Amino acid sequence: MASTDTVIGVIGGMGPAATVDFMSRVMAETPAEADQQHLRMIVDHNPRIPSRQLAMRGLGESPGPTLGAMARRLEIAGADLLVMPCNLAHAWQSDIERASSVPFISIIEVSAESAMARSDDGSAIGLMTTPGCFTAGLYQQAFSDRGRPLILQTAGELATTMALVERIKSGDLSSEVISGLCDQAKELIARGATVLLAACTELPLVLDASMFDVAFVSSTDELARKTVAVALEREQQGHQNQ
Amino acid sequence: MASTDTVIGVIGGMGPAATVDFMSRVMAETPAEADQQHLRMIVDHNPRIPSRQLAMRGLGESPGPTLGAMARRLEIAGADLLVMPCNLAHAWQSDIERASSVPFISIIEVSAESAMARSDDGSAIGLMTTPGCFTAGLYQQAFSDRGRPLILQTAGELATTMALVERIKSGDLSSEVISGLCDQAKELIARGATVLLAACTELPLVLDASMFDVAFVSSTDELARKTVAVALEREQQGHQNQ
Repeated sequence: MASTDTVIGVIGGMGPAATVDFMSRVMAETPAEADQQHLRMIVDHNPRIPSRQLAMRGLGESPGPTLGAMARRLEIAGADLLVMPCNLAHAWQSDIERASSVPFISIIEVSAESAMARSDDGSAIGLMTTPGCFTAGLYQQAFSDRGRPLILQTAGELATTMALVERIKSGDLSSEVISGLCDQAKELIARGATVLLAACTELPLVLDASMFDVAFVSSTDELARKTVAVALEREQQGHQNQ
Repeated sequence: MASTDTVIGVIGGMGPAATVDFMSRVMAETPAEADQQHLRMIVDHNPRIPSRQLAMRGLGESPGPTLGAMARRLEIAGADLLVMPCNLAHAWQSDIERASSVPFISIIEVSAESAMARSDDGSAIGLMTTPGCFTAGLYQQAFSDRGRPLILQTAGELATTMALVERIKSGDLSSEVISGLCDQAKELIARGATVLLAACTELPLVLDASMFDVAFVSSTDELARKTVAVALEREQQGHQNQ
């Protein structure tokens, strides 16, 4: 292997299907005709991480120590950068950054940036997420930092979204689940959202831009695009320095 | 994490899409409603491994040292068992076993066993593969050991199959590629095959049992099923010993 290979470390398994989806999107975003042109990833696909939703409700063990241990393990295994295709888990980003010195690309930051770029006329951004991610306030903070208000889901809408996300996690990708989530999105659109931000990596497993008349930001896609861009830039710099 | 967690080490990236497909099939084979019931995998998704096809033709660097280093790295990262969702790469299985003491589940053995079980009336097994895997003789040896003849592809059929596999690797999953591969399968069926063994992990990305009147053995599926069975059994034993 060339020493300029960039190894993408993936803190994964939250949920398992979302991690596999992220890997597919990294591959789709990589210009490649042959295997060797694709990017290298080391994926700790660990669905056994304590529930982030329960921890956020104060009802379960913190996933922080496990996430930190995974980051450290990926660093030892050779990761040059770290990503985590789960929005809510970013509530424990500080545990990851304490455990490892590898640069971490935040899904919150890249998704917020993309939503901002698609609403630079001041269009309203609707945040579609789970109760845990809502309670963590990650996106509320990111958009507050950018001086942009958000259209938020009600507690009832968050609960409905969670029930549908749990069905996706159990493997149910049925039209009933899809239409249920589309209904949740329509509530945000009815309240004025012209950009939908899917701030849960299970949502893009069943939803995509073609389903909506407004702009749709997939946090999974945004993280994949940024990851590929950073990795390819890093490899190009490595080649130049050789 | 419970100490009874089994960590599946995946020597991956050959090709990238086949590894992601393998991960999906492991998840599909795992009885799980929630994230935490899924199995843990550490995946070294390394598409940069030297070309197995070129090495088999004596035209390129051996992938053996890289495969051995990946196995060792997965062992250090905590793998309790190793799998490799690529048939041809098993030609370098000895490099893996020299580098690591973690039990290795062979895709060749599990696929051969499954094909034997589906042809216990002595039905003829047709081997559908790539020139490299054909030259390596892995399946010819496995079935010779079992006293079962194979129906083999001609050099021309192998070359056509390879061209179509390369299109799959470049992301082309078109109906033209599918029908081209179905035509290759039909050649084996016309020569008497009543069991088709898809001995290349790119093939099940576009082919499945519903396309054929004869039995269809997907090497990816067989490896996923065996991996899940071994991991769950190991975890059950761990719980009993606690």
